[in-house]
Amino acid sequence: MNTSSERQLLANRPAALQRLFEFMAIPSVSTDMTCAKHCQEAATWLIKDLQDIGFDARTIPGDRHPMVLAHGPTIAGAPRVLFYGHYDVQPAKPEDGWDHLPFDPQILTRGDRKVIHGRGAADDKGQVMTFVEACRALTETVGLPVNVTLLIEGEEEIGSPSMQKALALFADELSADIALICDTAMLNQTTPAMACQLRGFCGEIITIKAANGDLHSGNYGGAACNPAQILAKALASIQDSASGAITLPGFYDGVSELPAEVQADWARLAQFGTTILPEVGLSRPAGESGRNVLEQIWARPCFDINSLSSGYLGEGFKTVLPGSAQAKVSFRLVGTQDPAKIRETFRAAIRRFVPDDCDVQFEAYGTVFATQMDVTRSEFAVAKAAVADLWPEPCVLIGMGGSIPVVGMLKAQLGMDSLLLGFGQADDNIHGINEKLDLESFEKGAIAWLRILQGMRLADQQHDACARTGSPQKAQAAYVSA
Amino acid sequence: MNTSSERQLLANRPAALQRLFEFMAIPSVSTDMTCAKHCQEAATWLIKDLQDIGFDARTIPGDRHPMVLAHGPTIAGAPRVLFYGHYDVQPAKPEDGWDHLPFDPQILTRGDRKVIHGRGAADDKGQVMTFVEACRALTETVGLPVNVTLLIEGEEEIGSPSMQKALALFADELSADIALICDTAMLNQTTPAMACQLRGFCGEIITIKAANGDLHSGNYGGAACNPAQILAKALASIQDSASGAITLPGFYDGVSELPAEVQADWARLAQFGTTILPEVGLSRPAGESGRNVLEQIWARPCFDINSLSSGYLGEGFKTVLPGSAQAKVSFRLVGTQDPAKIRETFRAAIRRFVPDDCDVQFEAYGTVFATQMDVTRSEFAVAKAAVADLWPEPCVLIGMGGSIPVVGMLKAQLGMDSLLLGFGQADDNIHGINEKLDLESFEKGAIAWLRILQGMRLADQQHDACARTGSPQKAQAAYVSA
Repeated sequence: MNTSSERQLLANRPAALQRLFEFMAIPSVSTDMTCAKHCQEAATWLIKDLQDIGFDARTIPGDRHPMVLAHGPTIAGAPRVLFYGHYDVQPAKPEDGWDHLPFDPQILTRGDRKVIHGRGAADDKGQVMTFVEACRALTETVGLPVNVTLLIEGEEEIGSPSMQKALALFADELSADIALICDTAMLNQTTPAMACQLRGFCGEIITIKAANGDLHSGNYGGAACNPAQILAKALASIQDSASGAITLPGFYDGVSELPAEVQADWARLAQFGTTILPEVGLSRPAGESGRNVLEQIWARPCFDINSLSSGYLGEGFKTVLPGSAQAKVSFRLVGTQDPAKIRETFRAAIRRFVPDDCDVQFEAYGTVFATQMDVTRSEFAVAKAAVADLWPEPCVLIGMGGSIPVVGMLKAQLGMDSLLLGFGQADDNIHGINEKLDLESFEKGAIAWLRILQGMRLADQQHDACARTGSPQKAQAAYVSA
Repeated sequence: MNTSSERQLLANRPAALQRLFEFMAIPSVSTDMTCAKHCQEAATWLIKDLQDIGFDARTIPGDRHPMVLAHGPTIAGAPRVLFYGHYDVQPAKPEDGWDHLPFDPQILTRGDRKVIHGRGAADDKGQVMTFVEACRALTETVGLPVNVTLLIEGEEEIGSPSMQKALALFADELSADIALICDTAMLNQTTPAMACQLRGFCGEIITIKAANGDLHSGNYGGAACNPAQILAKALASIQDSASGAITLPGFYDGVSELPAEVQADWARLAQFGTTILPEVGLSRPAGESGRNVLEQIWARPCFDINSLSSGYLGEGFKTVLPGSAQAKVSFRLVGTQDPAKIRETFRAAIRRFVPDDCDVQFEAYGTVFATQMDVTRSEFAVAKAAVADLWPEPCVLIGMGGSIPVVGMLKAQLGMDSLLLGFGQADDNIHGINEKLDLESFEKGAIAWLRILQGMRLADQQHDACARTGSPQKAQAAYVSA
């Protein structure tokens, strides 16, 4: 089991953590343009680290922040994999309640677990580094078994606006047999998981402007229209209070029921489903009635208000009638729902609430179709086998509520399937305060990727052999002998 | 006409502006406790200035910021007046778009008018100083004609939380024949106005908490309840979209139609009414259908959202499902509407939208009954006469949409009527950016108060005489001979 490359991974652990901490200490917040230089800095750091292990690494341009594109040595006749991740992170302000500074990563003890605490620990710097460390250990011992390309973008948290162009421009360099993505979570602490479907996304920023500016609510209240009230009424109309259904016409076009086998799989996860809300302090599923929590978050579309802002936001009370009101909202989509159509019907629905003498502006934020994975590919079996003895429970196929825009683009533009295997936990709080990654996830994640790369090579070799002998199933255990 | 005291006022003008600028430069923002020392500083400044003109001035405690209580010399047998104003101001951030720093007052030219630009120019430091400058000119020439007490609080912009206690504790010192208040606006640039009714107020801060914190909207959207959506739905329910009426049960109890004479008065102001919304960039009355704008802002109750805040409020987009959502809202009240009852029905209405596993907190902000003035008092005639040749149009009686909490308390606790005469303009933007007071208002306001104080003394003397001869109407022209 403990091959030379796995032993090397073990020997490298202290240095690996040191590297990850350097990477996490760079506040590469893509949504905040004042952090642009830090995004560049994170890209530069990663290039240097990949060059250290023999990769040919460089930046390619993004609309706002560069991507890192890197190739390992060419292994003639071996499979090609494209590893995708992102170095950009969500905003993080210490005053929001972080136990330690978000960009001063630490190992902390949380209950019986050691965790890597800091912004980007799980989303996605820590997970990216599981793959890089696997490549390092292989490079330092037996060599990389497959052709590895890395594409690490800096705009994932702002909706991957440059990805489509990059995939078109660099199609040849990026094309591979499969994309490997490490930006997701396990089912729970004992059960690794691969995603079989991802929800799509359609975000909008709505700004309603009424009067020339804020007014004294005593002098104008009752006569001047209030954009905060218009916004509240408009947003309140999008979801039916009784059924939880979205009211936009045609919204459910393209939404289908789960295939029977997936329903059966998820039925076995019912107990897990009941733990999701209590873990975050809630007890009642709030979405569509007649659906369980797993369906609601993995297989049903939804509408969410992500932020509201109007009037005086400081301490105390200011009796203004706000001059404007803004909401940031998003739809999560499934099946073949069309984000563009939904955007259009949403805007029309909001406009109906806005009087002639007011102005409403819409700004699109992200357009992502939902995705289904081809889980019959051999790589899924390889990955399942690779993690089989790392965690107590076998790997399960799950849905994913969040969007990873690149998955749909890789399929549409390069015809590539993706395998999403991630080592986060539900309590990593990836977009909130005190983001963390379990230290165990970081360490076992690297072993998993190492085994998967070796297993893919063996499966490929066996496939060639089995094409003659007719027993492709052996691929599952291929990594064991690597 | 130009009496010695009026000539003195004229001679004092440059110094008066200098004094006002000193006063305005102190950022006495009562709602922001980091400004507490500046509130104390403003009170100290005012005490010093009043002592300079022979007043016995001191602070008395407020819950958060002190009040200034000052007495002029005792004039045996003369009427007693209580002048009320406030030295606290609304928050003002330069980055909101101020043309000059809000606490660095300047004389600017705006069209054909010279204006005093800066926070507090109109609300209320500039207006307070019109009265102080009148007292100064009288003191420096013929002496004060009446017994003058000033009560200048530092908590008006946070709802006057200490006023009730202060009126009780200092009832003897504060009791007077009438309260004079200079914290309002003229009808327009050519027409001075006195208030005959003031709307009441009932403010609430509502905070809905759902999950333990912000969640990733992809991971939880569709299952976890969204406090921003709950808040939007709850607030949207308070006003009927079609009629503009407030939906709370019993809300209109105590609201009556205008007396015929007031209706007739206001019918003459119809043209003015049509200018109110266009001046702030709006064209359609947004409140109760079937009411004109003057009714809507002066004589009808209303509900307003003053602020909304939920989720990530920084630049860009953060796909969180917010852990909490907050709104600051207020009702403007008329007639005998009971703020406490309305608060109770409002809270019940909001609670109906909040699921069992969420928490809603309410914080009361301000409770003010609406007020009617006794406009038959002789002081109203004196004031009308005092301003008759200062502006082109005669003084009119108007309603007021905003609340001045002290008016109701003075009546309820000390049995005192109030006379509200103010020199602001609709475009002073008192709670917004670039607050200003027309220089003409500052200068003529001081003359008006000087004449009113002299006129009140003469009216009082004539009243004694007329009680024998039977012609009290002469009081109207009394100031002319002063």
